[in-house]
Amino acid sequence: MGGRHRLRTDAAVKALIDRALAEDRSSHDVTTDALIPPDMPGVATLTAKSPGVLAGAEVALTVFQRADPNLRAELLMEDGVTLRPGDAIARVEGPVGGILRAERCALNFLQHMSGIATETARYAAAVAGTRAAIVDTRKTVPGLRTLQKYAVLVGGGRNHRMDLADGVLIKDNHIEALRAQEVGLTEIVRRAKQGAPHTLKVEIEVESMDEAREALEARADVILLDNMAPEEMRRVVEMIGGRALVEASGGITLETVREVAETGVDIISVGALTHSVNALNISLDLDATWG
Amino acid sequence: MGGRHRLRTDAAVKALIDRALAEDRSSHDVTTDALIPPDMPGVATLTAKSPGVLAGAEVALTVFQRADPNLRAELLMEDGVTLRPGDAIARVEGPVGGILRAERCALNFLQHMSGIATETARYAAAVAGTRAAIVDTRKTVPGLRTLQKYAVLVGGGRNHRMDLADGVLIKDNHIEALRAQEVGLTEIVRRAKQGAPHTLKVEIEVESMDEAREALEARADVILLDNMAPEEMRRVVEMIGGRALVEASGGITLETVREVAETGVDIISVGALTHSVNALNISLDLDATWG
Amino acid sequence: MGGRHRLRTDAAVKALIDRALAEDRSSHDVTTDALIPPDMPGVATLTAKSPGVLAGAEVALTVFQRADPNLRAELLMEDGVTLRPGDAIARVEGPVGGILRAERCALNFLQHMSGIATETARYAAAVAGTRAAIVDTRKTVPGLRTLQKYAVLVGGGRNHRMDLADGVLIKDNHIEALRAQEVGLTEIVRRAKQGAPHTLKVEIEVESMDEAREALEARADVILLDNMAPEEMRRVVEMIGGRALVEASGGITLETVREVAETGVDIISVGALTHSVNALNISLDLDATWG
Amino acid sequence: MGGRHRLRTDAAVKALIDRALAEDRSSHDVTTDALIPPDMPGVATLTAKSPGVLAGAEVALTVFQRADPNLRAELLMEDGVTLRPGDAIARVEGPVGGILRAERCALNFLQHMSGIATETARYAAAVAGTRAAIVDTRKTVPGLRTLQKYAVLVGGGRNHRMDLADGVLIKDNHIEALRAQEVGLTEIVRRAKQGAPHTLKVEIEVESMDEAREALEARADVILLDNMAPEEMRRVVEMIGGRALVEASGGITLETVREVAETGVDIISVGALTHSVNALNISLDLDATWG
Amino acid sequence: MGGRHRLRTDAAVKALIDRALAEDRSSHDVTTDALIPPDMPGVATLTAKSPGVLAGAEVALTVFQRADPNLRAELLMEDGVTLRPGDAIARVEGPVGGILRAERCALNFLQHMSGIATETARYAAAVAGTRAAIVDTRKTVPGLRTLQKYAVLVGGGRNHRMDLADGVLIKDNHIEALRAQEVGLTEIVRRAKQGAPHTLKVEIEVESMDEAREALEARADVILLDNMAPEEMRRVVEMIGGRALVEASGGITLETVREVAETGVDIISVGALTHSVNALNISLDLDATWG
Amino acid sequence: MGGRHRLRTDAAVKALIDRALAEDRSSHDVTTDALIPPDMPGVATLTAKSPGVLAGAEVALTVFQRADPNLRAELLMEDGVTLRPGDAIARVEGPVGGILRAERCALNFLQHMSGIATETARYAAAVAGTRAAIVDTRKTVPGLRTLQKYAVLVGGGRNHRMDLADGVLIKDNHIEALRAQEVGLTEIVRRAKQGAPHTLKVEIEVESMDEAREALEARADVILLDNMAPEEMRRVVEMIGGRALVEASGGITLETVREVAETGVDIISVGALTHSVNALNISLDLDATWG
Repeated sequence: MGGRHRLRTDAAVKALIDRALAEDRSSHDVTTDALIPPDMPGVATLTAKSPGVLAGAEVALTVFQRADPNLRAELLMEDGVTLRPGDAIARVEGPVGGILRAERCALNFLQHMSGIATETARYAAAVAGTRAAIVDTRKTVPGLRTLQKYAVLVGGGRNHRMDLADGVLIKDNHIEALRAQEVGLTEIVRRAKQGAPHTLKVEIEVESMDEAREALEARADVILLDNMAPEEMRRVVEMIGGRALVEASGGITLETVREVAETGVDIISVGALTHSVNALNISLDLDATWG
Repeated sequence: MGGRHRLRTDAAVKALIDRALAEDRSSHDVTTDALIPPDMPGVATLTAKSPGVLAGAEVALTVFQRADPNLRAELLMEDGVTLRPGDAIARVEGPVGGILRAERCALNFLQHMSGIATETARYAAAVAGTRAAIVDTRKTVPGLRTLQKYAVLVGGGRNHRMDLADGVLIKDNHIEALRAQEVGLTEIVRRAKQGAPHTLKVEIEVESMDEAREALEARADVILLDNMAPEEMRRVVEMIGGRALVEASGGITLETVREVAETGVDIISVGALTHSVNALNISLDLDATWG
Repeated sequence: MGGRHRLRTDAAVKALIDRALAEDRSSHDVTTDALIPPDMPGVATLTAKSPGVLAGAEVALTVFQRADPNLRAELLMEDGVTLRPGDAIARVEGPVGGILRAERCALNFLQHMSGIATETARYAAAVAGTRAAIVDTRKTVPGLRTLQKYAVLVGGGRNHRMDLADGVLIKDNHIEALRAQEVGLTEIVRRAKQGAPHTLKVEIEVESMDEAREALEARADVILLDNMAPEEMRRVVEMIGGRALVEASGGITLETVREVAETGVDIISVGALTHSVNALNISLDLDATWG
Repeated sequence: MGGRHRLRTDAAVKALIDRALAEDRSSHDVTTDALIPPDMPGVATLTAKSPGVLAGAEVALTVFQRADPNLRAELLMEDGVTLRPGDAIARVEGPVGGILRAERCALNFLQHMSGIATETARYAAAVAGTRAAIVDTRKTVPGLRTLQKYAVLVGGGRNHRMDLADGVLIKDNHIEALRAQEVGLTEIVRRAKQGAPHTLKVEIEVESMDEAREALEARADVILLDNMAPEEMRRVVEMIGGRALVEASGGITLETVREVAETGVDIISVGALTHSVNALNISLDLDATWG
Repeated sequence: MGGRHRLRTDAAVKALIDRALAEDRSSHDVTTDALIPPDMPGVATLTAKSPGVLAGAEVALTVFQRADPNLRAELLMEDGVTLRPGDAIARVEGPVGGILRAERCALNFLQHMSGIATETARYAAAVAGTRAAIVDTRKTVPGLRTLQKYAVLVGGGRNHRMDLADGVLIKDNHIEALRAQEVGLTEIVRRAKQGAPHTLKVEIEVESMDEAREALEARADVILLDNMAPEEMRRVVEMIGGRALVEASGGITLETVREVAETGVDIISVGALTHSVNALNISLDLDATWG
Repeated sequence: MGGRHRLRTDAAVKALIDRALAEDRSSHDVTTDALIPPDMPGVATLTAKSPGVLAGAEVALTVFQRADPNLRAELLMEDGVTLRPGDAIARVEGPVGGILRAERCALNFLQHMSGIATETARYAAAVAGTRAAIVDTRKTVPGLRTLQKYAVLVGGGRNHRMDLADGVLIKDNHIEALRAQEVGLTEIVRRAKQGAPHTLKVEIEVESMDEAREALEARADVILLDNMAPEEMRRVVEMIGGRALVEASGGITLETVREVAETGVDIISVGALTHSVNALNISLDLDATWG
């Protein structure tokens, strides 16, 4: 990696933000319309209320800017920093009405993404010193995959494939389906290597030492050990001896991830990073400066 | 309510599903393209792996149908049922390739929505027998508000306002801003009642008995007690004596919600229902029937 | 209200403008392409040709800017001012070709919105001195509700609910449907209060004094008198005595609105404000400045 | 014309309907959700309340079908028929909730389009027996041009160009701009004929007999007489003697249109047909059939 | 024509560019993400590798700017210039990563459009000195019609109708269909002139001298000679004697176009200009300036 | 591969078709509107006029069905068949007007896609019997990548990466940029393997035997020989000895491809397959059946 991670707020991210603002009907805030003079100026600070890792700060600022082009927003911290309660993350200045219309939407992005980065950082810390990388899965919240996977990077994890097109991953259901045609593991790997684009590696899920050996001999590039006991994982890793990458998955938690990492696997994938997110507590403090 | 809750899969929900399928590049599944014969038939069952409350079953089926019009899907259970591990939720029949292309996307919706319904049901059970209703907030995951709020209904909760347009809710930041202009609570409520559409009630956040009294005298329709101690809540509820609805909010958890409910409040709003969702464990079991 | 009304030109308004420009094929103006040199500079003035109330000036300027980013536009008057024939509303400067490509589209918005504001102002003037507010309905031109309802505000009216989500309004057809189940008015109001979000008032349509009394006793928040004779309205208003808001509707015209207002109703809703709009006459005068 | 007019409900029309339903939040009708049992069946009839000409019946039915796929709709009359009060236009059968959610949106289309057809028919009747055709303009309500122009056809009018791409129309502002470059009428017509696609005629606006003569000699295909007195129009028509089409425009009303038609012009364009529409009164009568 | 051709990068063109960038997943360039430091600055030059005519330069620059707002782009040549190998067309400066993410997408537009302009210029040169104009057809690549037809203009051709709405063109299939109803050429032209908007000319395809004569007598504005031998074309042109425009079409190539032009036809339409495009060879040379 | 290729007409393909129909203004065909009775029935046959390979037949049929839901379409041949002139590809039955409105749009897709398949088949035939596969590139026509790459498969080629996300391809510009930082080939490959998702292979472009050797030693998965002479390619292939895949690219034509293939490379990528497409000649023959 040539430096820090960057989220590109491309047309798709902007469209997502616009949908989020529309979903909250930011332009029809009846409370603010009734109470706040249109030109009342103010300053808001986004402030951490809990410890964690910041992610999505730029997305949050973009929310403010798209909600009201008269708002000026400034990052005080960059994605990836460790937050302590009270830390000022960003400052937004301009019409108070605009700030209030965008507040919840901006926080919803920021708290969700920071929640992911925070949890990922815990997993990454837990495996520190081993060869294992923490990676995400395709078990993401619909519509948010790009932002969620970016937050995993920010938290110190790495990304598994983004989608069904950028990696061959032969799972139990594929194997099951082909078994009905009496096609075995070796032939499955052969077909995958022949049929898929030449730029992609072939990864296959196995459930036992025997299957792992067969997959290796079929020249699979990556071998996925799903729900295997750490002791067996260790033996498989030894058998493979670096001739393929080894990924572990299946119900791995913060409590068990270290033990898994110490088996020597290269990659540990954790669905909960993105499917079961705890929002990080961040709030917006307003300082109205009306003369 | 005239019967069960229904989610209308309108153009917006269909567009959300299409974006989710596109995000996963369901049409470019390199693994399935390389391995599964296009006409291979099969049957899949969506099965609960953990106990919980089902929500989103129809959304999941719509995912399969939009991913591959040759798939036939059938619900075996309706949203709102209590799931036990092993329960068969729905059946999908047709090309195995189509099933595999849509599997993850369908599960992502189903697990997220069922996770919300499950947690809501826990809160609802905790306050059973009190007058309090469990309601959600606007602290939702961007883009999913409609589905999330529906899942809260399914779990036995009720919905707070959907967005900024369908309820006047005067929060601390509004009050703060107007205080800078030396506008007090009474005048704020008066302005809100005058300025907002006549179809909406006026709700205001208060922090003390005195403010609650002032809000009541200003004829607020709903009084929101934010982060107030249960003992003080109880006194405020008594003072109000049914002349306004009372809502409690602020860091209320499954552990504390019963105590809050017993203060006599009408409404308890819980942000975590939608901002910190734990996916319910549901899986897809495939039975390929290739002759 | 904390000041003047503001229309937020959010992503939805911009998309509407872009569709209007595309519908007119602003980028493929064969006449201008054939005749006007691309760099020919000019100045255009939007000028009132009839008396009225201005609405939509900023929308019109946005049309010019989105049609040609080289155009510079400046408002000379703000929405809400009373126009006399000959008044200069706005000035647009830049390529003549850009001005001509956007002219009709900009005027179409401006004339329609100003037509609404003008007519609303007539109704508002007619009821001046009474307690009645003039409000709009959901009888709007498809796709333009936001702009139309904003123009009503500009003209001195107020908005009824924006849509089906932000107000409970029990109309004849709801009552009719439930009567088939032998559900009476009192029970209908009770179900609505229980079933709808707690932030919304409950409004119900009645046709007689008896129904009005039943609705009031059922604690309806707003009582809608549809097509009732002014004399009967007056008696109902007296009976209600301020315990609920009273709305009058049904074929009320500029000729009859004062009489209705003098019955003491709080709200008079007028569908024609938005369903039968007369465009205000505004034109664009071009001054080409080619050396 | 090979038969009746048909509106094609293509992707653009469907998208417009979906936006109209979304704008009314048809899927979040809090009143219907609170009161009407999801499975309550019913029948609704769309009924004319005023005399007029029907237009948009199929659009209205499409609104119901897109709002709720369980609704079955049937046309009882076709666009173009003359309506008498009480005439049943269409029948919709299915869930009462679906009918109520779509009612207003369907009527908004139908009333607007029928209003246009009705007024157009009045103009067409007024010029019956003359050679003049009544045509519309580009002075349309933003976003609705296709539907509005179709309604003009239904009412017996004809369409002027749909947009800036399908007709060369040299207006005062073009002439003004080129005059600044000392380019005269003859040269303007020559440039237009040379520069525009060969499939399009060249129409030019003139203000006097002399200009009309110059335009004719320059071989303009259509000559537009804007705001000319009928007496002068007549003389111009005679001078032209069928060598070009003649169009009259400018503030022509139902009162004056006959006199204009009798001058012998070929085409009379009336902006008010689409910019100042009076909705036709049509209502939905519901018959709930709950056992 | 009042000057050079201009492509308006309106909302539709921007949306097309955004789709092209999304199609290439410009924001997820795994190679650049892995290798190029986010802040590495650089300069790129778009350089012609083959001789030809430039078209689409501004589109290409817009691609870079939409891909990365930190890129500054500058045109060194304008559309329409004749390119020699080695000519520098444009310069892009800013983050190397942004340049690399947009490179292919920008070149795909530029090479395609310049390919069209180049080929059109060859045809235009071949007919130089005759009265014939080279025009395009509706045989375009789906989604690119606007850009393709603009490139034809740039290459010195002219545009036939943009679409089915801006020109009446009665083709063999229309004639065939009406012949089944025993409707002859004269009556067909009469119906077209009566039924189509008065702003459009009527063009009809004929296959013989006799049909051409019938079309002329029916007062067709344009007569299309499809797949006719040059000798017969010449005789038809003579017979018509300037009383209608004459268009030739049907398999005309660079080899045969001169002979066709010399028959005296006004217009020669060539489908291959847009349906069989050879991309012009243009490349991007990068100069990374990392200190 | 488990069988024939299938193009999934997902939401993106449907949207592309709808844009193509809108671009041609299929719903506003002034010629057909003026001439063809709405209910006139007919049958059309899509017929090959030149020899080639069919691709896009289902897309073409979908065009007809989306243009007019009353059309019934039936494939007579499947994608991938070898066409002889006169072969009937598909049959469309229903309203003649609907057929004519969709004709050009359907043919534009079909001719473009079949053109690609036909040319790909020529390349594939030319390398028959060697180990080389013909693959496409990212040099595609904007907006059509999915359809173009599918047509390459149909013609017997294979797909290179779909986009920037599903393959690491280190090109000259990446290497150039990093050279400015004094980072060499070995380190570049190391960074790519570490930084990119573990599911992707790493491919790198080299220009000489020495670079190829360095890339191989750095464990690149695929080595791209750009514009290398066949003789040198052969020596590089020998040196690599199967330890990495070898791809050849750069100006390879039908004349030279066999010689390249015989050097022993695994993959030959040909940009012209998609950037310089010759439409295949296919036409629509109409048989109107009006009684």
